[in-house]
Amino acid sequence: MSIITLTTDFGTKDHFVGAIKGTIYSELSTARIVDISHQISPFNIPETAYILKNAYKSFPDGSIHIIGVDSELTSENKHIAIFLDNHYFICPDNGIISLLASDINPEKIVEINIHDRVETSFPVMDVFVKVACHIARGGTLEVIGKPITKYTKIVELQPTISNDNSTILGNVIYIDNYGNVICNVTKKLFQEIGKGREFEIAANSYKFNKINKKYSDIVDFTLPKEQRQKDGSKMAIFNSANYLEIAIYRSNLDTVGGASTLLGLNYRDVISIKFS
Amino acid sequence: MSIITLTTDFGTKDHFVGAIKGTIYSELSTARIVDISHQISPFNIPETAYILKNAYKSFPDGSIHIIGVDSELTSENKHIAIFLDNHYFICPDNGIISLLASDINPEKIVEINIHDRVETSFPVMDVFVKVACHIARGGTLEVIGKPITKYTKIVELQPTISNDNSTILGNVIYIDNYGNVICNVTKKLFQEIGKGREFEIAANSYKFNKINKKYSDIVDFTLPKEQRQKDGSKMAIFNSANYLEIAIYRSNLDTVGGASTLLGLNYRDVISIKFS
Amino acid sequence: MSIITLTTDFGTKDHFVGAIKGTIYSELSTARIVDISHQISPFNIPETAYILKNAYKSFPDGSIHIIGVDSELTSENKHIAIFLDNHYFICPDNGIISLLASDINPEKIVEINIHDRVETSFPVMDVFVKVACHIARGGTLEVIGKPITKYTKIVELQPTISNDNSTILGNVIYIDNYGNVICNVTKKLFQEIGKGREFEIAANSYKFNKINKKYSDIVDFTLPKEQRQKDGSKMAIFNSANYLEIAIYRSNLDTVGGASTLLGLNYRDVISIKFS
Repeated sequence: MSIITLTTDFGTKDHFVGAIKGTIYSELSTARIVDISHQISPFNIPETAYILKNAYKSFPDGSIHIIGVDSELTSENKHIAIFLDNHYFICPDNGIISLLASDINPEKIVEINIHDRVETSFPVMDVFVKVACHIARGGTLEVIGKPITKYTKIVELQPTISNDNSTILGNVIYIDNYGNVICNVTKKLFQEIGKGREFEIAANSYKFNKINKKYSDIVDFTLPKEQRQKDGSKMAIFNSANYLEIAIYRSNLDTVGGASTLLGLNYRDVISIKFS
Repeated sequence: MSIITLTTDFGTKDHFVGAIKGTIYSELSTARIVDISHQISPFNIPETAYILKNAYKSFPDGSIHIIGVDSELTSENKHIAIFLDNHYFICPDNGIISLLASDINPEKIVEINIHDRVETSFPVMDVFVKVACHIARGGTLEVIGKPITKYTKIVELQPTISNDNSTILGNVIYIDNYGNVICNVTKKLFQEIGKGREFEIAANSYKFNKINKKYSDIVDFTLPKEQRQKDGSKMAIFNSANYLEIAIYRSNLDTVGGASTLLGLNYRDVISIKFS
Repeated sequence: MSIITLTTDFGTKDHFVGAIKGTIYSELSTARIVDISHQISPFNIPETAYILKNAYKSFPDGSIHIIGVDSELTSENKHIAIFLDNHYFICPDNGIISLLASDINPEKIVEINIHDRVETSFPVMDVFVKVACHIARGGTLEVIGKPITKYTKIVELQPTISNDNSTILGNVIYIDNYGNVICNVTKKLFQEIGKGREFEIAANSYKFNKINKKYSDIVDFTLPKEQRQKDGSKMAIFNSANYLEIAIYRSNLDTVGGASTLLGLNYRDVISIKFS
């Protein structure tokens, strides 16, 4: 039985998520539903992409991912279903797919056309669930939509690389539960441009000359405990999703603070890497 | 296998919800548990009713809904189980059923009487779960309770209609994840009283003469993008639950703000509709 | 099929929890996953212990509990798997087990040694899930780890008892969803030391001479409604987990306030009990 995941900006207080799950079970009693996130900042497509990109690959091939962010049907915001990287995505054509598919081409895309059969003011519940259950039962995309080849492309914040490959200018694209600040520079890009050279990362007035492999690399375990790095030390690290992250050792937004608060970093702020 | 849903004010940090789920699985290993909401404002019965009313109908007939809000057993707060609209509800007799059943009569109500067999200081976990699993296994309500016909009725905020049908005075009953403000005037009531007449909705000092069908109705897609309505425009709309809602296009409580913050609207505030 | 529970400080917005669930289902499609809490304060081990201790016992014997709090592998923070009280726990050796096992000895402990077979910067997803699925399939602990007998012990805040048994000094160890303040004095300890004597509990400048059995004990139901205790009254109570709790009747952190805010009580603050 296929898995159906949910990624939305609905929050978990309102009735929306419960109603969607009830609708899925009414349609397909054996469904296996998994919440990826319902805490997306309202209408935030890049955030949706960052979260979903780092979660969907863990699911088995054939999983079906419903995306309920900015999903109202309009003449400019069609509903689409995509088969991409062996996963199905059901979502509005609001650019999210171009971010998810930035390095993988979708194998198949259809514009969903069952709306005339479904009266709805809540399309994620009424339309997306119907499509998801159809796919879960082994149905093909062609039955619920018209094959298309174009989809809305939005340009994510892209790191800029200087002509002489001496500098990468990245941007903050996500701030996580610990207040750690994630930047759109991947380990792969860093290595391709850096080619092993020394470097200086600048985030606001803070500089880093080293990128840790894990958070605890900052601690010298050969020292006696009282002489070690304390909680709250700043560092650069490649996170588990392989993005450059400015982090605080054992950060906590409520107590010591996180990188976002301590270093004054926010969405879209520039983080620069200068190679030498 | 029946579905057991949970609607509580327990939050998701504490051990309560986990402990309840463990108890259900210990009693009934094949149970299918669905969270409707655990973020109800503590002891808020009208909020519980609004959320549950708009969620339970999506679930299959025979689903069992546990309500853990203000559930301590007292001489004035009995525990009851109800069969209503083909669904089971297990809850305190604190008025919640009168709100859920405002236009549907319960088919059967029992006062739960298994407390002498269960020592507990956490009745939702110990008593409600036992009742839910009993029902899920096909047991009848009579086995776990004594049939009753009366239950506590509380009067929800009701819209007031002027004698000459020229005005409806509604109240804010819910504020959703986007800060949209929901009022206790349903589309049905609006149409019955309004009979197609022109109208003016007043919410604080803001006026609306139109009720949208969807949020994006505010946008004129024939205009070039830069001349269109911007995010943050105010509107009245019938929401997906068919209640009158004062909304902000693409609202976000953290950035542009929602209707609640931008229009200064709060629970119980009056929203008036004047027909002409 | 065994149940796998998750207790983490990952929050529910980021991709972490979704990615873990996807990994579990990829490894074991029939898994039954239950969230205990993802809202642990970052790196807070006593809080993890309080929540997990009060939740795990509700689950069926043989359940597998993954703990993702402070789980980065270092030379001083090994990964361990434990069989304790008929439950399995997979966690870092950061002291959490000594808090969970304060009155029960673990039957078996192994230091997990499959890390050389797993490249990871996200051990909860890559290592803990593998171990959990191994156990769920009926595998033994010895296959994934080396039996050990010692584990990190941390000393939780312990109540102090005066030599003459006249006083217990406890500490606030947890503040729940309602703002109720939980203290590390159990009903058992209270009864052993108090032996039925009269007592005075002092929490800041507030005194209590009675411990309620339930929250509504504060209400005299024989009085007419308008003469009764109002919402917001302070009380001492043994909560459903059998800890001494300073509570506010029908508290709500957003409106009337909870014990924590109204009485100015915070983590680690002293609550004293004087017997006479």
